[in-house]
Formats: sequence, C-alpha cells, structure tokens
Amino acid sequence: MSAIPQDFIRNTARLSDAATQPFARSRKIHVQGSRPDLRVPMREVSQTDTQTQRGVEENPPIYLYDTSGPYTDPQAHIDLLAGLPDLRGAWIEERGDTERLAGPSSAFGRQRQRDPGLAHLRFEHIRVPRRAKPGANVTQMHYARRGLITPEMEFIAIRENLRLEELRADPRYAKLLRQHPGHGFGARLPASITPEFVRAEVAAGRAIIPANINHPELEPMIIGRNFRVKINTNIGNSAVTSSIEEEVEKMVWSSRWGGDTLMDLSTGKNIHETREWILRNAPVPIGTVPIYQALEKVDGKPEELTWEMFRDTLIEQAEQGVDYFTIHAGVLLRYVPLTADRVTGIVSRGGSILAKWCLAHHQENFLYTHFEDICEIMKAYDVGFSLGDGLRPGSIADANDAAQFAELETLGELTQIAWRHDVQVMIEGPGHVPLQMIKENVDKELADCFEAPFYTLGPLITDIAPAYDHITSAMGAANIGWYGTAMLCYVTPKEHLGLPNKQDVRDGIIAYKIAAHGADLAKGLPGAQVRDNALSKARFEFRWEDQFNLSLDPERAREYHDETMPHEAHKVAHFCSMCGPHFCSMRITQEVRDYAEAHRIGDVEAALAEGLKAKADEFRKEGAEIYREV
Amino acid sequence: MSAIPQDFIRNTARLSDAATQPFARSRKIHVQGSRPDLRVPMREVSQTDTQTQRGVEENPPIYLYDTSGPYTDPQAHIDLLAGLPDLRGAWIEERGDTERLAGPSSAFGRQRQRDPGLAHLRFEHIRVPRRAKPGANVTQMHYARRGLITPEMEFIAIRENLRLEELRADPRYAKLLRQHPGHGFGARLPASITPEFVRAEVAAGRAIIPANINHPELEPMIIGRNFRVKINTNIGNSAVTSSIEEEVEKMVWSSRWGGDTLMDLSTGKNIHETREWILRNAPVPIGTVPIYQALEKVDGKPEELTWEMFRDTLIEQAEQGVDYFTIHAGVLLRYVPLTADRVTGIVSRGGSILAKWCLAHHQENFLYTHFEDICEIMKAYDVGFSLGDGLRPGSIADANDAAQFAELETLGELTQIAWRHDVQVMIEGPGHVPLQMIKENVDKELADCFEAPFYTLGPLITDIAPAYDHITSAMGAANIGWYGTAMLCYVTPKEHLGLPNKQDVRDGIIAYKIAAHGADLAKGLPGAQVRDNALSKARFEFRWEDQFNLSLDPERAREYHDETMPHEAHKVAHFCSMCGPHFCSMRITQEVRDYAEAHRIGDVEAALAEGLKAKADEFRKEGAEIYREV
Repeated sequence: MSAIPQDFIRNTARLSDAATQPFARSRKIHVQGSRPDLRVPMREVSQTDTQTQRGVEENPPIYLYDTSGPYTDPQAHIDLLAGLPDLRGAWIEERGDTERLAGPSSAFGRQRQRDPGLAHLRFEHIRVPRRAKPGANVTQMHYARRGLITPEMEFIAIRENLRLEELRADPRYAKLLRQHPGHGFGARLPASITPEFVRAEVAAGRAIIPANINHPELEPMIIGRNFRVKINTNIGNSAVTSSIEEEVEKMVWSSRWGGDTLMDLSTGKNIHETREWILRNAPVPIGTVPIYQALEKVDGKPEELTWEMFRDTLIEQAEQGVDYFTIHAGVLLRYVPLTADRVTGIVSRGGSILAKWCLAHHQENFLYTHFEDICEIMKAYDVGFSLGDGLRPGSIADANDAAQFAELETLGELTQIAWRHDVQVMIEGPGHVPLQMIKENVDKELADCFEAPFYTLGPLITDIAPAYDHITSAMGAANIGWYGTAMLCYVTPKEHLGLPNKQDVRDGIIAYKIAAHGADLAKGLPGAQVRDNALSKARFEFRWEDQFNLSLDPERAREYHDETMPHEAHKVAHFCSMCGPHFCSMRITQEVRDYAEAHRIGDVEAALAEGLKAKADEFRKEGAEIYREV
Repeated sequence: MSAIPQDFIRNTARLSDAATQPFARSRKIHVQGSRPDLRVPMREVSQTDTQTQRGVEENPPIYLYDTSGPYTDPQAHIDLLAGLPDLRGAWIEERGDTERLAGPSSAFGRQRQRDPGLAHLRFEHIRVPRRAKPGANVTQMHYARRGLITPEMEFIAIRENLRLEELRADPRYAKLLRQHPGHGFGARLPASITPEFVRAEVAAGRAIIPANINHPELEPMIIGRNFRVKINTNIGNSAVTSSIEEEVEKMVWSSRWGGDTLMDLSTGKNIHETREWILRNAPVPIGTVPIYQALEKVDGKPEELTWEMFRDTLIEQAEQGVDYFTIHAGVLLRYVPLTADRVTGIVSRGGSILAKWCLAHHQENFLYTHFEDICEIMKAYDVGFSLGDGLRPGSIADANDAAQFAELETLGELTQIAWRHDVQVMIEGPGHVPLQMIKENVDKELADCFEAPFYTLGPLITDIAPAYDHITSAMGAANIGWYGTAMLCYVTPKEHLGLPNKQDVRDGIIAYKIAAHGADLAKGLPGAQVRDNALSKARFEFRWEDQFNLSLDPERAREYHDETMPHEAHKVAHFCSMCGPHFCSMRITQEVRDYAEAHRIGDVEAALAEGLKAKADEFRKEGAEIYREV
C-alpha cells in the first residue's frame, strides 16, 4: 500500500476535475419532502427550443434519477477529509431507539484505532458508532412492519417518482409521457410511487432499503422489482494492485456514472481504513463480503476461520456503516461435492473459502449454523443480508445445475429466518447462464425465496468473450432485470482478465445502465420512456446538444460526434456525418411530415384509390400468369 | 475523394500487418468436400495440455467458423490488385446456364468503363460480366427447388458443421460436447447439417445463399434460422468522410473479426469503382442499397428518380457481383401518412427517399409497381432480395406501430411474388424496439412473410445511450436472434453520431458475435457450446493462452490481461490479478475437487447425517422460539 496522507490530500483535491464537474446543461435540484431536512436530489436537464414553421416550441426540462451525491453540485462544499454531511443523522436520532457507543465494540476495530502505525492512513473524523438500544430493532423492515413510514421511505418515494405527477399535469410533457405497455412478469408497478407503497413493499420483504444507522451520509434508495432496476458496482484493491486513493476516486466515479450501490471487495492489508474513507464519502449504500476481511485476518487460510473472529468482523464493519453484507450461508457441506463434476467448480471467492472450511473441518458451514447470531447483529445496525450465491455457475456448462439450485433453496430457508428478525434480505444470483435458461433463475428465486429481491451478477450469456464481458453480461442483465431482478451487479471489460481501471468502470456502468433502463421500459415502469422520447425527439430535430445531454454518457457522445464533425456549426446543422449534408433521411422525413400536415390523409388515400385498384388488378393478372410458368 | 492508385497500392501493401496476421496458435485448415475444388476453410485453434495429478491430459483442437477468407492464411498469396481467386468459377461454368457478356450491359457501367478520368481509381482486372442464358434462372433457390444440390450447398453444410460428426466420434471431445437444451421457438435444428438439409431449407425459402454468379470469389454461406446466426457489417463512405482505401481495408477488417456479410452503403462520388475493389477482394457476400447510388445519379433529388435509371443501376451492380440488394418496395404511398405522428418519422434512408418520391409524384412506389421487373433481373444473376424496412421505427416510441407492420405485410406479399420467380428473399427488420416487444416482430415476420429469413438492425432496446449503441442494440439482437432472426446487422458505437473507424467496426462486430453466439446457444444449435466449454475449461485450469486464443478477440483479451499482469510468468501462474496469488477461488476449487475425488460423496453425506440432524432440530427449536418473539 502506497497510501500516505499527503498523496491522498493531493489526490482528493483533484477529484473535482474528472469526477465532479456537472454535466452540461444539467442542474442539481432538490425536491422538498414533508420536513425541512428531507430534500431529494435530482438532475434537471434543460433543453433548447425547437424551431418549427409555426414558431418556437418549448422543450421542457427532463428529470433524471441522480446517484452522484453532492459531488456534481457546484453549491456543495466537498471535503473528503471531513466526509459528507450526515443527511440522515436527525432521522436516526429522532427514532430514539439507538445509542452512541463509547468507541468500536469489535476487538479488531479497537486494535486498528489504537495502532499508531496506521495514523497516516486513518480517516480523521471518525464518529463513535451507533447501535440499537438493548432489545431494539432498528431495521427499515421492522419500522415498515409496524406501519411506520420513515423519512427514508418518503425520500425514496419522491426519488423514484422523478416528479411524475407534476409532469402529468403539465401539457408540455403530454407527448413525452407516451409509453408502450410493459410486461412485468408479475411485477405490480403502481401509477406512481407513494411513501406507503414503499413501506408496504419493505414490510412484505419484496424490497429493501440498505441504510446502516452508521452510514447516515447516504441518500436513501430502494432495491425491489416494483421500483427502478438498480445497478451495483464493485471496487476493491487486491494484493497485486490498487490503493486507498484509487478506491475512493473510483467510488465517486462510480456514483457519477450511475452506480446505485457499491461493493468494496478489497482484499489487501488496510481494508479497514480504506472502508472508512469510502463510507464517510459515499452517497450510495456500501456492501461488503466480510469473509474476505476475515480471511485476511487468518493469513488467507480458510481452514483457520472461526465464528468468533467472523463475528468480530461483522461488528467491526457494521459499526463503520456497511449497509449490506454478502453472507454465503447457503454453501452447505453436502452441496460441495455437487460441484465436483462442473467445468468450472466453485468460482465464487466466498463460496470456495467456505467450501474449503467445511471440508477441512468436516462440519457444516459456520455461517449457516450461526445464522441467527448474525441476524442479531444485522438488526442492531440495520445491515441488510445479501445472501451470497457461493455455488453460482462460472460457465455456461454449469448453469442452473443441482449445486446452484440446492443453495438457492437454502437461501430461501435463511430468508425466512432473517425475516423473523425483521432483517432485510436480498438474494444473489448468477453468473453465467445462456439466454434460454435465465428466466428459470428468476422464477425459482421468487418462488424459493418468497419474492425477496434478486440481485444478480450479469449473467453472462456466453463464455467466449473475455475483454467484452461487460457486454456479454449486460445482455443477460437486461433480460433478468425484465424478468424481475431488482439489482444488477455490473461487470467490466476486464472481468476474468484483471482489475478494472476508471475507464473500465465507466464502460461497465453504462452497459448496466442500459440493461437496467431497458428492463424498466420492458416492465412498463411509469414514466420510464420520457427520457427516450425526449432524446429521440431531440435527435429527430437535430438538437445535437440536447441529444448529448440527455444521454447516459453526454461526454462520450459529444466526443464521438466531434471526431467526425468537430465544428461547433455542425451541432446545429440539419445533417450529420452518417449521410452528409445532401442526403439525410431525417430531413426528408421532415418534408414528409410537412406534406402530411398540408394534405389530409383521407385526400391521399382517395387520390390513390383508383390507381391502386388498377395496379392490384394488374398484379393479380401477371402473378397468375407467372405462377403457371414456374 | 482523395483516392489515387499510388496511395492505394501503398495502403494495400500494409493490409497484411493489422488485418491479416493469423491469430495465435490458430491454423487455417480446409475440409475436403466431394470434389477436389471444394475445400471448406475453418480455423483450428490448438490448445496446450492440462497438467493433472494423474499426468498429462490432452486438450484437443477446437474448430471455429472462419469468415476471414484467405487473408489469415499464410499460405495464400494476397494481391488486392488482382483480387481473390474465383473459388466458384468452375461450379458456375459447369452448370451451363450462364453466358459471358461482351461487357457491362448497363449504360452507367459502360459510361464508367469508358471514362478516362477514372483510370486511376479503376480496378485493373475487371472480368466481363456473366448473365443467365435467355430464359434460364440461375438462383440457388431455383436449383434447390429442382432437387439439385449445388457445390455451394455442400460447401455450406461442411462449413456449418465444423467437423461435428468427427468430434462426436472422438472421445477427447466427449465432455466438451455437453450442451444445455435450447429453446428454438419453432426452429428445426438437425443433429448435423447435411447438403440435403441445406437444399431443402433454400427450396422452402427458409434460408438464402447470397451468391451472385459475378461474385465467384465468395466463400458460400447461408442465412436461415435453422443455421448459425449470422452478422452483417456496414461500411461506406459518405460525402463528408472516407475513401476507397479505407473501405477496402474495412472490408478485410470486418471479415477478420467475423462479419458474415457486408453491406457497402457508400453515398459518395465513386461508388462504382469502390464497389469493384471491394467485390473482387471480398470472401463474403456483399449487399448494397441500389437506391443510394440511383440518388447520386440525380444529384440527391428523390423526386427525379425514375424506374429506367434505377433498373440500369440494378443491372450495373448485379454485373459487378453484388449478392443482395436492399429494395424498399414495401414503402407504399398510403403508408407514408401513418408515419406523420411518429416521434422520429422515417429514419431509413431508402424509406425516406421513396416516401418523398411517392409524395412528389402522387404515385405508388415504383419499386412496388415494377417488382416483377426487378425479379427478372435478380434471377439472371442470382441476386437475393433483402426487402427493406423503409418504415422501421427510429425510436422506442415508434416501435411496432401501424406503419411498420403495414409495410411488413406488404413485404410478405412481395416475398410470394419473388418466390414465384425462385428469387431468394430475406426480410429486413427494426430498428428500435423495447425488450418486451421484440418477439412480436419475429412472430409477425415469420407469419406474414412465410418464414423467409429475418434480417434485423439491432434492435436497440432504448434510445438513451448514443456512443454505446453497439451494446444497446446487441442486447436486442441477442434476443431477436434467439427468437428466430437469421442475420443481425451490426451497429457500431458511433451510430447516430458519426462514421465508424476501424476500432468502432471491431467493437461493433464483437458485440454482435456475442449476440449471435448467445442466440445459437439459446436455440440449442448442435455443437455451439463446444467453444464455451473449452474456453471455460481453459480458464478454470489457468491456461491463460488457451483462454485468449479461444476468445472472440484474442488480441484484446491478451492486452487487457497484460495491463495488470504483463509478465510472461503470470500467464502460467495459478492466479490472476483479480484476487492475487494467495486468494484464488479457482485454486481453492481445485482443492475441493481433489477432496471430492478422494472421498466418495456417500462418505461425506454419511459423516454429516447425524450432525446435520442435530443441527436441524436445534434450528427448528430456535426458529420456533424466535417466531413467537416477533
């Protein structure tokens, strides 16, 4: 690890350039909720006017779901050394069911805090951890089941809606709101999202709100199939490459491009300190796989893992503010031999660690046997379960096999246990699955796991495209999202080959934003098509700047356009480089439209009727003759 | 146009470096057919051995469908100035139903031939054109319907099979041949492809073999849903950018990465000469949209188009060897007003040209009224119809609308007319379609067009990702291929923004190779999974080089790997940069497998039985208690 504070400060000072500048003609707005401290951020993209023959047509602003946090807000004061403001601090405090501890209650947390050798890596302003009061349960599911609508739930309802009700009342949006009917495969999408709908979905276990009481900085979001499909990104150093600075930079970068949650999969030496920096600056929920850190603590020897040290790791991370834990409690000893004939065995890191532990000890997975103990920890901080698919297929050949589905059934059993504790649960899914076998994964997950949100990695629809697996997997992701998966874990072009750099992260995110949005359209999410309609209208009308600004990656769209047509004048020109100035289908179409406006359709049809009849007669005559010839 | 012969020669001399070097550990083989001049090229990828505890396990070579022509064959003598050898020359000659003309029979062809100002652009070794003898019909469909198995059909059967029968007889492939059952949505995939099967599919109109008698250089291939899904690439200069050299380079480049056919969509000044260069050097079928060139001839004014000059253009191109023509004969005058309320009107260039012509003349589309005349030309050279979807949707909002489907029905009517002439037909499809509405396109095409092969552009599943539309559209392409589309027209990242460069072409092709292969797997194409299985086995066994070599883009896979782990030693190391040397799921899995081999599964289960029972009892007990608590 090369991290030293001077370097870090210098790097953070540079964050603002690449990762924090607002997108062109975009403005951060805040929609006011029912209380002064409930202000929901959105991105407002303004558009230019359309010049028509009748005069000027105003194109209204478009509202986009914004995961970037305060980083893209020029009004916000960003200080990575201080961390983000604790947006939810008062909400948590007011509930009166938590207490501040004197310091970390995990042995490891205390040890790291005491170690003077870590001073140069340590985040300066660590808050003391908060924990549920004895006997209290502080999960959003617990509140939901008691009928309480939390500020988090209201925040989410406003956020998911993107002002849809106001748009419906505004005639400027009438055409933009046109939308095809979706096919939700059993999803129950309401006309608009209310706080009560959020509450009910969380209470039913169909959606989760990952929001640890020790991560008050996050902007609440929801994962459930009756809401917008979300995407997760992964970052993490490893023993081979990467450092703290890079990981924090990637977190901000990931949020900028649309990552809804982020998993820190670090496996290096200073995981604890890296995580603190990330959490204190993260506007999105953070997930981890605690077994990775536990393994670090036993020098990479799975057989030396113990429940006690794993438990300490859970508390350590929960008190830092991790919002969800991947727990591979479904990797049962009796399932392990089911993987022996696979082409690619066990490809999940967590799965293989636990398989090895089980075999080495000839005992059942300690995460399974201690599952209730884990629930007790989760509900004291509101950490959600992401029940890991340790036996997920790592190749097309291993898709939907006995090992995978046996584990899935066990995850369903564990879901019910977690729900008895009002602990939030989502279920992880594959992996590598050919197109025709994807839907079975969703159907089985919904049935076996009682509609707990599904959270899948891809899946990749073929194994033959290393270096393009963001694409291979986004294809599977679009379909599995449509079928009912609530969150898609992204894959970068470097999957199977190496660690992603910032460009790879951006490529992976955009591929997954496409998949998620494609799934939203396909499910029929109300209002989802507004952005498509607005962008297409801009494209048709040669409003190049608006086309760029409404796109998932305005910067690259502009850059690609400028490669062939760099001049500013071309951005208002009524042609593009595909067809050139004299030959443009869109220009011709405009003429067609003008014609159709000038002539009533009935006129055209009447004028043609006689000629067409004669022609049809002629065809029939000729056709009949030719038919005899052949 | 900057093309001068010196430049061109210099450029072609450089082709071999970037576009023609063989892939690592790949060898061009030729499978011998029933006659000496029937030798079917394939790419053979050799693999390294696996070191196991029991000794060395041989990994057999994998055979890949190879579209690259002689360019990747170090044995082949490449001379772009002379063109490729006329592979099919003798086959065509032997059939005795064609004759050599004295020279081009089109007025335009003769004019270009006479023009001394074009000498510097002209391909040197132009053959005189060949045409059907009076009254003869030289289409592959005509032969097929008369029960004739042509050498082209046999070539295709061998090519599609990729030695599958031999692999089945070879025990080294036993595990690699494992494959999931597919869901072909009505496809009738045989256990292996026979020449008779090829004939029958062509006779039924379910597949086409684009193979103009004036393009004897091409390696025969087939487009039909009971065969491998194919992909088409587009190249073409426009008035704004690009030149002859670049287009020929792109053609070779496209074939290298896997383009099965190629459309030359040039709209510049020297279309005729560019096309000659491309055709004489193209191992893949070439398609065009003749209306583009026709429009050039009337200085870009659609209303000045006439049947006579269009007819001359068809003959001009047919005599050069174009293998299929996009003909927008379904854009009927009465359909044009149906597009007036669309968000993006008419986005097909051909469609908008013809719409404008119809409106300007208040007459029916002359391609429709002269459709039988066009058939007469097609069957004299064996040019296939690609019936254009001039009214395809250009945005999600316009998908599956009345204009699109009205045209599709007319394409069905035209299909039957073409088939009366034994002229081969495929049907072009959209465009922009959200996921949930894609299948309807295939179902309707198969019904309305009597199972003629479907050939679609994407479709894009959302409009919001300019600069990433190779991905957006490949998602739709994978699904539409699975549902039964025979060929997928690629889209590059520059779609909607500018003309693609070579890198964009490669990116677009690979995205579409993924889609096509994903569709093959999903349909259950026999043997399709061999490559996935082999690559995954290599991945699991840390045979990095084999993983690269079996991938769709070995060069980029290697490059990405080397970015994080550049040392040669790492390519044999039993770890990768994702997890580092001490923490590798694949290594742990190998230990699991060794364990499972050492212990019979029964042993494990027996050993656990008692402990598990106790644990289960405990769970039930605790669970019950907790349930009462909540």
